[in-house]
Amino acid sequence: MADEAAVRAQAEAVRRLKQDKADPDEIAKEVAKLLEMKAQLGGDEGKHKFVLKTPKGTRDYSPKQMAIRERVFNAIIACFKRHGAEVIDTPVFELKETLTGKYGEDSKLIYDLKDQGGELLSLRYDLTVPFARYLAMNKITNIKRYHIAKVYRRDNPAMTRGRYREFYQCDFDIAGQFDPMIPDAECLKIVHEILSDLQLGDFLVKVNDRRILDGMFAVCGVPDSKFRMICSSVDKLDKMPWEEVRSEMVGEKGLSPEAADRIGEYVQLHGGLDLIERLIQDPKLSQNKLAKEGLGDMKLLFEYLTLFGIAGKISFDLSLARGLDYYTGVIYEAVLLQQENDHMEEPVSVGSVAGGGRYDGLVGMFDPKGRKVPCVGVSIGIERIFSILEQRVEASEEKIRTTETQVLVASAQKKLLEERLKLISELWDAGIKAEVLYKKNPKLLNQLQYCEDTGIPLVAIVGEQELKDGVVKLRVVATREEVNVPRESLVEEIRTRTNQP
Amino acid sequence: MADEAAVRAQAEAVRRLKQDKADPDEIAKEVAKLLEMKAQLGGDEGKHKFVLKTPKGTRDYSPKQMAIRERVFNAIIACFKRHGAEVIDTPVFELKETLTGKYGEDSKLIYDLKDQGGELLSLRYDLTVPFARYLAMNKITNIKRYHIAKVYRRDNPAMTRGRYREFYQCDFDIAGQFDPMIPDAECLKIVHEILSDLQLGDFLVKVNDRRILDGMFAVCGVPDSKFRMICSSVDKLDKMPWEEVRSEMVGEKGLSPEAADRIGEYVQLHGGLDLIERLIQDPKLSQNKLAKEGLGDMKLLFEYLTLFGIAGKISFDLSLARGLDYYTGVIYEAVLLQQENDHMEEPVSVGSVAGGGRYDGLVGMFDPKGRKVPCVGVSIGIERIFSILEQRVEASEEKIRTTETQVLVASAQKKLLEERLKLISELWDAGIKAEVLYKKNPKLLNQLQYCEDTGIPLVAIVGEQELKDGVVKLRVVATREEVNVPRESLVEEIRTRTNQP
Repeated sequence: MADEAAVRAQAEAVRRLKQDKADPDEIAKEVAKLLEMKAQLGGDEGKHKFVLKTPKGTRDYSPKQMAIRERVFNAIIACFKRHGAEVIDTPVFELKETLTGKYGEDSKLIYDLKDQGGELLSLRYDLTVPFARYLAMNKITNIKRYHIAKVYRRDNPAMTRGRYREFYQCDFDIAGQFDPMIPDAECLKIVHEILSDLQLGDFLVKVNDRRILDGMFAVCGVPDSKFRMICSSVDKLDKMPWEEVRSEMVGEKGLSPEAADRIGEYVQLHGGLDLIERLIQDPKLSQNKLAKEGLGDMKLLFEYLTLFGIAGKISFDLSLARGLDYYTGVIYEAVLLQQENDHMEEPVSVGSVAGGGRYDGLVGMFDPKGRKVPCVGVSIGIERIFSILEQRVEASEEKIRTTETQVLVASAQKKLLEERLKLISELWDAGIKAEVLYKKNPKLLNQLQYCEDTGIPLVAIVGEQELKDGVVKLRVVATREEVNVPRESLVEEIRTRTNQP
Repeated sequence: MADEAAVRAQAEAVRRLKQDKADPDEIAKEVAKLLEMKAQLGGDEGKHKFVLKTPKGTRDYSPKQMAIRERVFNAIIACFKRHGAEVIDTPVFELKETLTGKYGEDSKLIYDLKDQGGELLSLRYDLTVPFARYLAMNKITNIKRYHIAKVYRRDNPAMTRGRYREFYQCDFDIAGQFDPMIPDAECLKIVHEILSDLQLGDFLVKVNDRRILDGMFAVCGVPDSKFRMICSSVDKLDKMPWEEVRSEMVGEKGLSPEAADRIGEYVQLHGGLDLIERLIQDPKLSQNKLAKEGLGDMKLLFEYLTLFGIAGKISFDLSLARGLDYYTGVIYEAVLLQQENDHMEEPVSVGSVAGGGRYDGLVGMFDPKGRKVPCVGVSIGIERIFSILEQRVEASEEKIRTTETQVLVASAQKKLLEERLKLISELWDAGIKAEVLYKKNPKLLNQLQYCEDTGIPLVAIVGEQELKDGVVKLRVVATREEVNVPRESLVEEIRTRTNQP
């Protein structure tokens, strides 16, 4: 430990020299000494050495993982484009104050940047608040856009379950003043299309409305000031049993036991149009203006969902609350239904895979004059979906190619590097995906093995005789078939055989 | 200002209550009071209000900009895939110590995250160091990969010239022990292909070698300890005249005037194979082992570049130094050549658009046993390229579509919302990209105008009569031609007419 102190002292000395703008030569000498001391320390005591890892809650994506990820992204993007969405991008960090007051209890999970002089910045927590900031800043009142990007939350990671501190969100939002529930229904259609496309098994989309929740709180006797707080408690019902949630309401949040019990009765309810009709008749709820509005819209929503042919997968569920502060109307969350699945080695416990809702007040929070832009959107939780698909690929032993290379340019004889380079250059310039081993004289066997390993379907072999004859020997890796192809028709031949015109 | 102080005091009171875990009711009451005070303050004094902007040096991408960005990305990714690259991804931040000691003087530009407990983190400064960390961590000794992602530098932004604090890098790297200069030559081929593909006008790729620079410094009489420092000065030659660089070397960095003058003679040299041959014969340089190695490899490189047919665009330039510490061999940088360009409103001053080099020691800095993995790579500076293309699009008044929607589902009569929703649902399920206006009873004119504005080529019109006849009226926006299409062949008809089978 004495050494470590010495290193610190030396580092301090160097800092001081730099601060004093000392003679650069002297600084360089002291820096060299410092580096040597550090190297010794590292060499002698392994435990002081640098830890080789990614930050907690984050991960790298390997080429194989990226191949799976791209499949998922492509399916999602195709759906967003099918629904006519434009795409935007925003910076990974925002002014800290842009994020302040938007996330309720979850604000503590925001990553701040160090104050290095200048503006105070935070990493984005979701894509919704930056979207609202973008709309207000550019005075956009009407847009349908998607945005796929990473967001950051200092949450407790549970990486085996696909919960990370850095993760992708795939958001689709519709902003604008429209007739009720049409865009809202489209968002649910999108969730349905994506989860069906990705073949993740059976799923259910829970739907509720913040106005119904607020009305319910009011008729249950929750004081106005406690609405958000109690809403956060209800939000925990997917992870905790009612008894625990109830005791949080009464114990920590100071709600009366009677009010809690009344809430308890409502949050057990879930169903479809029948339940909505029943609640519209509910003697207490029907007296509350907010609840009445919410239930009316919920009925309309289910009518549209029926037209879309997807009402069967949607459940009106009074226990759905969603944590974020900014929702003002309909809210929803898609969950995969656990099932017997022979493909998986062990059952994966997967929570919500998509969620969203209406947030009519958020843009107004950014507009200097408070002008509102009604918005509704959905966010696909790609990481959990990705975890499932990755496990499925692992279990199925499906071979995934990580490159698209069509042909390897090879030679059987020595001293043909120049010829290989000339040929591959021709192929690249013609748009053919081609590789060559970076060896002067690679063995043919190694070149063929490389194709087997990486799934390259063709080998273009140059040799003395072929060069004389003006041909290239084209070998099909799978069948070992070999044909001599005139050099001038090689590109065409490769295109045809790899089905990439 | 009295109000502001009161708000601060109230905020402090709330903090204390929360800290003391006071009665939640009381906290809620005080929070409400605080929010009201803040609202009043905001209302009364505009200048205290929230600033609506993105952080300094960053920007949003609008749908139109994204459309241009995607074109550029697609060209670059196509090139990387043509060369057989896999793709990886890494987190946006790394452990702070992962980045420490890799960037020389530029380290001061790294963004650190705030210490919120746990690990100390920094935003990535480039994609090369995370790549080296990835290789060492996963014990990968052989890979060819690309990585396209944002990096972060607290530099002085010059946004009109495409210099941002958050910007994309598009990196292609080849790691592994190979025969000399073959992967290096491929990296230059890639730069050449991409810059040609993007039609950015004439360009030049400057090439040098760190070993030649170090050898040159040695024979010019620069002390070993000053190599990196003087290298940083040479790196500034693209922005400063030699006289200024010289005075930095002599004044700030304490180099002897004679040594500086000797350097001054070398750094004026640039050329091709002829210059390389001449320097191989140079009485001083040829005595230096490093310089000799570097010049030998440079000769080999130019032979390969000639085979690739690109030597004409490559200039061996002794003034090229590159700022980063980690380069060990060949280095390169592509610059666009300024030209008369009638398309641009004002000439854009564009610096380097691509750069890279060999860094054989970087992976070893992460490996616990110091095992080296030789690497060479190139990074495409997408932002500057993007700036140019964006200006070109602006000037040309080319209309860029920001969606791919094939058809708008419309109606001419009222009360047909349900029918429109049923039809669009059929189209979506068949994979057609379709939109509908979110109005119960939109005017036909508004629906047609929407197509004009957004470039949607077809309109599928439902009406009472069409419904009875089992047809849909399909209108071609550009020609105003209208045909009745049987409902069951509508999907096929749309596919054919939009050329998207």
